Amino acid sequence: MFSTKIKESLIRILGNEFVCDDTETCITYSYDATPLYQELPDGVVFPKTTEDVQKILRLANEHHIPVIGRGSGTNLAADTVPHQGGMVMVMTRMNNIVEIDQENLTITVQPGVLTQAIHEAVEANWLFYPPDPSSMKISTIGGNIAEGSGGLRGLKYGTTRDYVLGLEAVLANGEVIRTGGKLVKDVAGYDMTRLLVGSEGTLAIITEAILKLIPLPETRKTMMAQFNNIDSAARTVSAIIAARIIPCTLEFMDQRTIQVVEDHAKIGLPRDMAAILLIEQDGSPSIVEDDLKKINQICLDFGSVHTHVAQNLAEGTKLMAARRNALSALARCRPTLILEDITVPRSQIATMVKIITDIADHHQLTICTFGHAGDGNLHPTILTDARDSLELPRVEKALADIFAAAIRLGGTITGEHGVGLAKAPYLEWKVGHAGYHALHAIKKALDPTNLLNPGKIFRS
Amino acid sequence: MFSTKIKESLIRILGNEFVCDDTETCITYSYDATPLYQELPDGVVFPKTTEDVQKILRLANEHHIPVIGRGSGTNLAADTVPHQGGMVMVMTRMNNIVEIDQENLTITVQPGVLTQAIHEAVEANWLFYPPDPSSMKISTIGGNIAEGSGGLRGLKYGTTRDYVLGLEAVLANGEVIRTGGKLVKDVAGYDMTRLLVGSEGTLAIITEAILKLIPLPETRKTMMAQFNNIDSAARTVSAIIAARIIPCTLEFMDQRTIQVVEDHAKIGLPRDMAAILLIEQDGSPSIVEDDLKKINQICLDFGSVHTHVAQNLAEGTKLMAARRNALSALARCRPTLILEDITVPRSQIATMVKIITDIADHHQLTICTFGHAGDGNLHPTILTDARDSLELPRVEKALADIFAAAIRLGGTITGEHGVGLAKAPYLEWKVGHAGYHALHAIKKALDPTNLLNPGKIFRS
Repeated sequence: MFSTKIKESLIRILGNEFVCDDTETCITYSYDATPLYQELPDGVVFPKTTEDVQKILRLANEHHIPVIGRGSGTNLAADTVPHQGGMVMVMTRMNNIVEIDQENLTITVQPGVLTQAIHEAVEANWLFYPPDPSSMKISTIGGNIAEGSGGLRGLKYGTTRDYVLGLEAVLANGEVIRTGGKLVKDVAGYDMTRLLVGSEGTLAIITEAILKLIPLPETRKTMMAQFNNIDSAARTVSAIIAARIIPCTLEFMDQRTIQVVEDHAKIGLPRDMAAILLIEQDGSPSIVEDDLKKINQICLDFGSVHTHVAQNLAEGTKLMAARRNALSALARCRPTLILEDITVPRSQIATMVKIITDIADHHQLTICTFGHAGDGNLHPTILTDARDSLELPRVEKALADIFAAAIRLGGTITGEHGVGLAKAPYLEWKVGHAGYHALHAIKKALDPTNLLNPGKIFRS
Repeated sequence: MFSTKIKESLIRILGNEFVCDDTETCITYSYDATPLYQELPDGVVFPKTTEDVQKILRLANEHHIPVIGRGSGTNLAADTVPHQGGMVMVMTRMNNIVEIDQENLTITVQPGVLTQAIHEAVEANWLFYPPDPSSMKISTIGGNIAEGSGGLRGLKYGTTRDYVLGLEAVLANGEVIRTGGKLVKDVAGYDMTRLLVGSEGTLAIITEAILKLIPLPETRKTMMAQFNNIDSAARTVSAIIAARIIPCTLEFMDQRTIQVVEDHAKIGLPRDMAAILLIEQDGSPSIVEDDLKKINQICLDFGSVHTHVAQNLAEGTKLMAARRNALSALARCRPTLILEDITVPRSQIATMVKIITDIADHHQLTICTFGHAGDGNLHPTILTDARDSLELPRVEKALADIFAAAIRLGGTITGEHGVGLAKAPYLEWKVGHAGYHALHAIKKALDPTNLLNPGKIFRS
């Protein structure tokens, strides 16, 4: 609960309706999409304007109340869990699409706009905002920016950070900064825009963003290739890239994932296969046709036992649905699902998948692996039960083993989900002692009293 | 000159040959490509390894000697002028291409490799490193990264920062950090890679870089469109983008630039035209052919009085040479050339060019404008004489007017050249008071004793 004095001050800023510290609301904002983490906030606030955000941060500063910015709470690193209490600042009322600028190919949005709403708005104008995190139907763009979200199209089009041209944000001291602009080129000072992208709410609260758009590809085409061993699938991924073809998406599912998705969705996936690749190319019809033909041949040359090219967009969407539904299908298997997010250099995918299998066997765990093979971003997913006090320690050990292996192969502990609370203990493994202290120095420089999302990214 | 003690310590690290403080060497490294700025360093060092750089920085720390990292010194913001004395650290001995990784589509390079050498090495493998700053024949990749260099292909392909996947760098305290990797997706901590890109040698000395490569486009085609008024040229630029075509380059030259380049290069440019656009598209032959046809028609529809499509690559290269030679042609006109580097939203190009013309008239100056119309990055170029004490104050005033106008139109004071010494007084105009202090806080956090390139970016 907020103290009476704080609550009165907040109500003066936002009005009664948008300051909540009742138990129901506090419980609602005590967790996010990450299992195993939950903590009650003191209360929850719902600002409507940048000025609201400034006033709240000034108040929070004065009284040393942690502020945890939050959109839909779909993140998977416990980044919006108020684990030191404080105030959850929910940005969903700031949900206007401010402008679509057809001449400069930009869209300006408030942080609470849903990612999907951006896709729909720009595609209606034959424009394209490529980042497509799996949660895009319900995630907010502010959350995407704060987490540096990726998605299926990262290989060809890059991720959220490649599309943020400018930001308005409120710093911990309550001051507003505006970075970048409707500008592809801007080197006036350090790249503050990209420093804030992926800063997980620890450096500033984002209140507006200018995003880059590109022309909408004319068409797309999807195919599936089945493999009876992982190595062939991995070699195929490398061979496609080596043929100088960059598909729009190049997704991988291992046998365990295939079986679970098929049990759940009944879309005719091959339960007996060791792996499938789902491949999509977009662009002008002639290029798409040509690329798919070449990719299909490469799949067959490198050991695919069966390939199938979707005959139309609807069939393609159905094929891709297998991948997009993987998470919800897996979530039904056991009470607790832990979705991991390592990335390795593309050439190391086969090795990494084998290591994950070994780790699963060693710790007697069920780990399903799927992910974005084209960009080396794999999601080993542990199916477990948080109430099982014998299994949970083995899960922790398996996760540590997976992170260590990814780093050993030249990879990283998180490709698109962020560090948050869940991976804070492992960040130094990736960035090293000097790197960790350099990152922490930036945090201390911009948020000296550790007001914004304390305990995230860095060990408390 | 170095003190005897410092010199002895440096010689112990590098050997006699690579520590110089004779007058000739000091003069050689007292300036860069920026006119009006020159200052002698205490001396110059030439490290060969990352360990050398570490040892030198530790020594510099101990004795509070400023360190100015430098490649070929082609920068245009006085970024490598040792204006507070100290030690110029020349990175040109660290000039190995470490590896081209065909599976992961990366090249790993030391900072002293020439940009052009990277182009040649990767294109021989049918791969492509798009950033093409005009100085690429002699600029080093370390300099490109430190400055966040752009180039002609920025509109379609982005700039240097979009291709740096990982860095090894030595911090002011002598510690080595390694950021990113052969990874398209990595959100482990703040984006230190992109913070160092464009940090102008003020945060770290870059000792190795992993760069992203893409497949080499199969072909390219070039055209020129002539306009008898600026407005038509600017409207054409917007119309091409509005037609959802993103050309590889879309360059603009105003009449004064056309005349000077033609006088110099005699390549048949139309001296009587108000503006020309040089347009290039690359990709698969069918797309290139198709796009050029559409672009040609748009040029005619929007008022081009004459268009010409190059019949082959050689003719295309000759057309583009007009643009690539603009700077050296302009440099012959008067003793001093001041090349500016504003960016405005693409939709504001015509307005900005008109404002520049008015500013030139008002201050009785010759300003030629050319640049990257596609991404709004213009290079108003003042032809003057640094020895003319009556003209120089008018130049200063005109520059300030140009920066103010660019910001007023939603633009920036530098699109691809950096802030350095030359624009440090204007940075706050762009980023605001709070933004300036946030950037400065980062500098102080990572380089608390102001050892690295002091006085650059921020006002001394």
